[in-house]
Formats: sequence, structure tokens, C-alpha cells
Amino acid sequence: MSRSAPGSAPLPSPLDGEVIVSRLKELAACTDVPGEMTRLTLTPAHKRAAAQVSFWMREAGLAQVHMDATGSIVGRYAADRANAKTLVLGSHIDTVRNAGIYDGNLGVLTAIAAVEALKQQGIRLPFAIEVAAFADEEGVRFLSTLTSSKAMAGIFDPKSLEDVDAQGISRMEALRSFGAPVDRVADCRRDPAETLGYVEVHIEQGPVLEAAGAPLGIVTGIAGASRGHVRIRGEAGHSGTLPMAMRHDALTAAAEMILAVEARGRADGKELVATVGTLIIAGSAVNVVPGEVQFSLDVRALSDELRVRAVADIRAAVADIAERRGVKASVDIGHEVPAAPCHGPLKERMAKVVEGLQLPVVRLPSGAGHDAMVFRGVMPMAMLFVRSENGSHNPREYAAPADIGLAAEALYAFLLKTAEEM
Amino acid sequence: MSRSAPGSAPLPSPLDGEVIVSRLKELAACTDVPGEMTRLTLTPAHKRAAAQVSFWMREAGLAQVHMDATGSIVGRYAADRANAKTLVLGSHIDTVRNAGIYDGNLGVLTAIAAVEALKQQGIRLPFAIEVAAFADEEGVRFLSTLTSSKAMAGIFDPKSLEDVDAQGISRMEALRSFGAPVDRVADCRRDPAETLGYVEVHIEQGPVLEAAGAPLGIVTGIAGASRGHVRIRGEAGHSGTLPMAMRHDALTAAAEMILAVEARGRADGKELVATVGTLIIAGSAVNVVPGEVQFSLDVRALSDELRVRAVADIRAAVADIAERRGVKASVDIGHEVPAAPCHGPLKERMAKVVEGLQLPVVRLPSGAGHDAMVFRGVMPMAMLFVRSENGSHNPREYAAPADIGLAAEALYAFLLKTAEEM
Repeated sequence: MSRSAPGSAPLPSPLDGEVIVSRLKELAACTDVPGEMTRLTLTPAHKRAAAQVSFWMREAGLAQVHMDATGSIVGRYAADRANAKTLVLGSHIDTVRNAGIYDGNLGVLTAIAAVEALKQQGIRLPFAIEVAAFADEEGVRFLSTLTSSKAMAGIFDPKSLEDVDAQGISRMEALRSFGAPVDRVADCRRDPAETLGYVEVHIEQGPVLEAAGAPLGIVTGIAGASRGHVRIRGEAGHSGTLPMAMRHDALTAAAEMILAVEARGRADGKELVATVGTLIIAGSAVNVVPGEVQFSLDVRALSDELRVRAVADIRAAVADIAERRGVKASVDIGHEVPAAPCHGPLKERMAKVVEGLQLPVVRLPSGAGHDAMVFRGVMPMAMLFVRSENGSHNPREYAAPADIGLAAEALYAFLLKTAEEM
Repeated sequence: MSRSAPGSAPLPSPLDGEVIVSRLKELAACTDVPGEMTRLTLTPAHKRAAAQVSFWMREAGLAQVHMDATGSIVGRYAADRANAKTLVLGSHIDTVRNAGIYDGNLGVLTAIAAVEALKQQGIRLPFAIEVAAFADEEGVRFLSTLTSSKAMAGIFDPKSLEDVDAQGISRMEALRSFGAPVDRVADCRRDPAETLGYVEVHIEQGPVLEAAGAPLGIVTGIAGASRGHVRIRGEAGHSGTLPMAMRHDALTAAAEMILAVEARGRADGKELVATVGTLIIAGSAVNVVPGEVQFSLDVRALSDELRVRAVADIRAAVADIAERRGVKASVDIGHEVPAAPCHGPLKERMAKVVEGLQLPVVRLPSGAGHDAMVFRGVMPMAMLFVRSENGSHNPREYAAPADIGLAAEALYAFLLKTAEEM
């Protein structure tokens, strides 16, 4: 590690939260819907954002800045030696519709800032750094998602090129018009043997850090998820003429099941969440006893074992309630994603860095999915959360400039500490 | 009472259930949607049905058959003397969309059949009989409803003429194109001093008679109803990132309230029903903890006191649950209709008639509204229910020809018994 300035020098200016926020705002101008932040993957707004990010990467000293086969922008900051391994920093620059400006973009800009700080300090590390601005994390436009990070992890599914959007445009076509060298997906893969790991900064999207009064959080892992539907078939009837004792009301059965889902979610404390988000009554009317109800189920936990057990308990509760009430019920779990625990040593290094900044060390799972999760079982992965207000995926999501500055500083310190420990 | 045939004569043929069913089927051909029974008020199909009913009325010996100001067809079977009072028999011939063929129509056709049986037997009674085929009971086309029977009760609201349907046609315009002498609403009113009462035969629309194995039922009264909405405002959040303990889930709060509504409904046994028929989650998604929920409330009882008490208990339960869960909830009862008890002597006479037919006497309230209810406090009213399968307001509603025949026979016997007791 070569370093031109001593450690006691003032904080490099690229790490200033206000500087990063001004870039976030500049990037937010790249939107497909003026007046809001809407930048679905592979759209004209995404193209402009990719160009802007490429420019910032080059300014930050990243070399070989290019668009990969999946539309991601990737740049490389060389090591201080030949044959060095690589550490990948990244997040995504696509957004949902009417999004906030922090989700995804913040991770890309703090990564660029950390590298720019190295450059400004004239520091090269004993490992190369790659910064990736992934093209496809939100999954709003196409059915499949996380294709960019999956390509890097070497688990890209070629079938995802056939996905079509609402206009009938395939991902393949969209990538071609975007200018991505779509035939070179294999080049996206990073060899785990030559890679130290993947590290991502992201806003928390939940209220835990805010409630704890902590600007930063050490992610313990990305929760696994079971998602599906519960369908209940009772007997419809007239609300005035069907006596209570003769009813097989699908909605009151659903109500009891929803409370069972909630109770099961609560039973595992902070380790698990269980949610019913949608509920539809077939042919509903004020004066009709509901005959058919369907509701969604979403169970997440960092422990796959806990999650699987919770789903089994919910299945049993649903069956019990259905039998007792004389209705039919089925639980259909259509979507199952295993948990992706963060890598112990990377995670602990991040914790030490946060501690070094004299901040409280709060450890928390990520209940939401992230690009980082695709590296499960492929290479070490870690995430740093930044306190945020008002959740995410809405224009009110907010991270304070001071917290953003601390995140950039932590990431920068993490790079230095990684070098130290090598 | 003059009678040309002794009581021991064979059953007059108009009372034959099969005959009435063949007329029900003929009437069902008057539909605005071929292949299903859809005859909304004041439509071309209704016009054809009105003409058919007028024809049958005249055939049955009813005189002065005419269309009144509200579109109803009314005919009169004179008494055996001058200055006699009048008994009104009736029901409606409008239907809901994709209806069954019995609801409403059965009451009109059994009334015509009973009169036709009198004519066939050469009987005139010491009171006149009017048969009314009301035009507007279902309330599907216009916001207001029961306008025909209300006009007869003298409580017609002239504002209902301004109601417009989905095509922007006012009830006034619809009545004019229907051929109704809309300016003569006052003529529809029957003077209670000159009227013995109103009697209606109707399918049960519920499963009580079927469960009891009874073809006919004595209606104790038409339940009063309180209808409204419960609105819950909690806090929306990400299903993965919002810990269970920090949630203010509007749907789980609603679930608890729905169970409280059900429990309160059950607490009064057969005397009360309480139903949640609709539920809407604002901005619902599988991965969003519901922030806002609205559900409907429908409470009915024959006792207004019981019903008012139940609504108060439900309000209290909702407030309790909301407070405990840290959500806001409001109960808005927008619609309140008092119960309409059936007239004691008419009801008991009907019970004796049913007993005389050697049928079980089952007494039950009507949880659904009927034309009969508008006569509450105006003149005596009674109803006879006919056992039906598959509820009502759907193509599968069904009353057996034998039961229909028994209903016609009972109504005929009721007329004779009324004469006897005068």
C-alpha cells in the first residue's frame, strides 16, 4: 500500500455527504417521467444516467470504464501491484416508478466517492477495486431481475433475455438498443478465486436504524423469503337472510388466518417477519357473505430453517381454522428464495470500521432483496446500511447528508482496513 | 261472501304449482339480456313483462288493470258489496342483473293465481282485492328504490324522480318513455282507512325453511338494517424491512375487528346478523404492510333495540382494537332502516292457514328488504315465505313447483279466511 498523505489529514472532499447528495440530485435528473424519479432498466433515462456515472467514474480515477453485456457500467481502480485480487463495490442505478433518489444510486456514488478519495490521496491498495453500477435490480420492467449482478456472479440465466416488457420489447432487444454488448455475458463473470468479495452500501429501507439512533448498520445477511397465496372457499350468501350459525364465511376465516400469520411472525421476535399484503373477495358486496377470498403471504427470515418452520406452522394454522369453520383453504407458496448471510470476516471488518468512527454498531438483517444476495455461495459479500426515513420506493425516502458522508467515510476506511489486514 | 262451489271441491287449477311455474318461465322470456334473467326497472324487457302481467290479470278476472305513475301494473277484483275495504296483494317484477326467475315475480303470479281461483269458483269476497306488480324494488338501476310501493304507502319521495341511471337517464324520463302517467303519483296512494292491509308472497332468499324442512314460512317482520363502513389508518411499510414489533398494520387490525363483528353477530343467536362483505386495502401489494383498509358493515335484526345495541358494541370493539394496535379507526353508519314487524292478526291468520294445510308452522324474520316494509306504520302488512334453494339474485335460485302450489293455496285460503273472520 502506497500512500502520499498521512492518516491524520483532513477528510478527503469526495467523502463529503453534501457532495454526494449533489450528485444524487444531478443523477435524479435522468428520469423518464419529468417531475418524478422513474428510471426503469434500459430506458433512455437509464442511458443518460449510465453516461453520467461513467463520467464520474473516470473523474474518480477508475479506468476501463465500460458498459457490460447486461447494461451495467463497470470501472476499475488498479492495485499497487500486478496479479492482485479484486474487491467489487456496487449497487444499481435503475429505479422503480416514482421512486426516491437514494435506493441503489447511493451505493454506486459512495463507491465512486471512496475510490475518488483514494485517488485524491494518491493511494493504491494491494488489491484492485471495481465499481459496478448495475442495470437491473428493481425488476419492474421485466419479469426476471438481478440479471446484472447474476452475470457477475456467473449465474446469469440466458432465458431472461427472452423476457418481454409491457410493450412486448424483449430484454435482448432492449439491451441492444441500450448499446450493451449482449453477446459477451460470459465476460461479466468475476472469478471468485481472484475476487476478495462484493461490498454494497444501501439505504436501510426500514425504520430500525432510525429507531436505534444509529447512522449506519452492519447487515447480518439478506433474509430468505417465502411468498405465495392462501385461497379460501366458503359459501356465499345473503347478509340479511343467512343466519350466523349457518355461515361458512370465507372472510371471517381469512381474518382468523391473518391473525395467525401475524402471531406466528411475532413469535420469532426480530428474526422473522410475516405479512399479508393483499386480500381479494370474489364478487364482494356489502350485502353478500363472502364465499371466496384470496390473500397473499410473505414470510422472511435470515434463517432458512426458521422461515421454513414458520411457513409450516402457518400451513397448519390455516388448515385448522379452515376445518373448524367448514371452509376449504389451500396455501400455495410459489416463490422461495434462500437467505444470503453476509460473510463473517467482511462483516466484522465493517463493524470495526463503524466502531472506529465512534458510531453505535447496530447489526440487522436486510428484509429486502439486494444485488448482494446473488453472491451467496459464490464469493464473500457484505453490506453497509445507511439510516433512512420514510422507507423506500417512494419520493419521500430520505437519507441525511451527514449519514451519507459517514457511509462514504466508512467505505473508504473499510478499503484501507482491508489493505491493512492483507 | 258469495260462493258458488262448496269448500270440498277439488283445488282450483290456477293454484297448481306447475301452472304458476310455466308462467314464471314465460315471464322470464322478458329479459334485456338474452340467455339470462335481467330485467332492470323501466327497461324494454320490463315493458314487455308489464304487458304480459296485465294480460294475465285481466284473464284472472281483475278489472281496471292499469299502469300507475311509478310503472307498476295494478288490477282490482271487486268485492261482493259496495263501499268494501281493499286488501292489497303484491310483489315486484323488476329483477337484478343475471337474476333468478322467482324473486318478486312469484309473489305477483301467486296473487294473480289466487284471484283467478276465486273467479273460477265464482267467489266474490266482502272486500276488494288489488294485485300490484311493483316496478321498482331491486334498486339496481337508480340510487333510490321501493318507489312503487312507497307511492302506494303515500311516502313517495319526489326527489327520486331526479335520480339518474348509469347512462344519465333520469327516473322521470324513464317513467315517461315507459308510458307511466308520472304526474299522477298521488293516485297511487291507498287510504289506510279503506285498506285491510298488504300481503306479499316471496321466496325466502335464505336457507332457514330448507333446513327446517318446511315449504312455507310465516314472516315475523322485516329486519331493520344498519349499514356503513369502517376505515382504518395504520402505517404502510416494506414487508421485509419493517419488524413485526414496529408495525401498525391496518389489515391485521381489520382482521381483529372483522372477528369482533362476527362474534357480536353470533352473540344474539338467531335474532341478529352482522356481516363484513367488502374489504379494500389501499395500494395493496404482496410486499407492503397495509397502511389503509376499509371494510363494510351490515347489521340486521328484527329488533331495532338489539341492532342499535350491537352497532354500539361493534363501535366500542373497533375503538378498543384500534387503540391497542396504535391505528386510527372510524365507523361510519351511512344507512339505517328501522325494522318493519308484520301485523299480528294478519300474521296469525296466515299461520292458521299454513297449519290448515297440515304444514309445519315456521316463523322467521326476513333479513332482506321487501316492498312490504314500506307499509310499516301505514297499514297492516304480512308476508308468506316460500322455501327456496341457492339463495336469490342468481340464476340458481329455485323454488319447487309443489311448494309454489302450496303458497298459492295458502294465499287463496288466506283470502277465504279473511272473509270468514270479517
